[in-house]
Amino acid sequence: MKPVITPQDRLVLDTSLFVNPEVRNDFGKTPTEALSGFLELAEQIPSLEFYMPSSIFSELMNFVKEEEIPGRFMAILNQKSPSKHEMTCPAYLLYELIEDMRDRVNKGLRIAEKAVRSAGKEDDRELIKGMRKNYRDALREGILDSKEDVDLILLAKELNALLVTVDHGAIKWAEKLGVRWLLPKKFKDYLLSFIDDK
Amino acid sequence: MKPVITPQDRLVLDTSLFVNPEVRNDFGKTPTEALSGFLELAEQIPSLEFYMPSSIFSELMNFVKEEEIPGRFMAILNQKSPSKHEMTCPAYLLYELIEDMRDRVNKGLRIAEKAVRSAGKEDDRELIKGMRKNYRDALREGILDSKEDVDLILLAKELNALLVTVDHGAIKWAEKLGVRWLLPKKFKDYLLSFIDDK
Repeated sequence: MKPVITPQDRLVLDTSLFVNPEVRNDFGKTPTEALSGFLELAEQIPSLEFYMPSSIFSELMNFVKEEEIPGRFMAILNQKSPSKHEMTCPAYLLYELIEDMRDRVNKGLRIAEKAVRSAGKEDDRELIKGMRKNYRDALREGILDSKEDVDLILLAKELNALLVTVDHGAIKWAEKLGVRWLLPKKFKDYLLSFIDDK
Repeated sequence: MKPVITPQDRLVLDTSLFVNPEVRNDFGKTPTEALSGFLELAEQIPSLEFYMPSSIFSELMNFVKEEEIPGRFMAILNQKSPSKHEMTCPAYLLYELIEDMRDRVNKGLRIAEKAVRSAGKEDDRELIKGMRKNYRDALREGILDSKEDVDLILLAKELNALLVTVDHGAIKWAEKLGVRWLLPKKFKDYLLSFIDDK
């Protein structure tokens, strides 16, 4: 009889691990190769369970060649959305989210004003392109700004899992919710430590 | 012995009732007069308890002559912040808040782009003034956008109270949280109905 293995820990993974070159390169040169590289390690560690919110998984599929993803990948990486209609969060987080957003909105307005003042002095198309970038950066950097981010932190919370992401907004909110997180640069070493220990 | 009166209901009041002319005029010509007008009715209704979050009360004090507010006003209108560190909210509301904000942020960017394209064609100072207004309107209208708004809906939730406000963002969120709310135009009639019944 096969021995029963109780999982030692659960991990929630973000797309960024396989897409962001700084982290991805630990596993492979392209997103598809990085996935395979991760899979090779992951299947040697029966004591870890890996999860990814479905929304994040869909994002990932935009970066990889779906036909090259081995079927066993789906056995290793569980797709699951958080139970968002059953879970609750502390009400004071609403305040933090709104305060965060207000600061960003004001920053966005400053950027817009600056662009209007510069108009005519340079090519308008370039100016608008630059403004768009600055605006989006100002309004998104370090903030919880997408439902994919919320999926990540809630799923990690629900499963009492270790969150692995490059996203600063998600990390900041993981800390607010008491969710453990792992420095993504250490993700490969973390996995290897389970294999070395065997 | 005085009979014990059990309160029949609790109400959470917003500043807008005493400031917004459309509603205020039911009670008095100025915010200070409106407060007195409300007080005259309210003290005839022992079965209703009135509450206002402290943050909202501070806002109100900017609009009224503090020295003209009678002391018994403070006995009628309870100041209380919601227990925001003990209360929870359904986690899916985080998604709604974030989606709401994303839509607004994109609208803000469209407004900024339009202003840049118009620059040079009209006086820049006027253009920026107009842009600021449009931007703020687009990003705030109908959205839960301040901690005062959150105070209102959470306090109403906590007390299982009837919320009376003119703010569309707060009403929208009251509905999400199952908080009862009263059409502010009907506030005076509502109060009078308790007095007529006596």
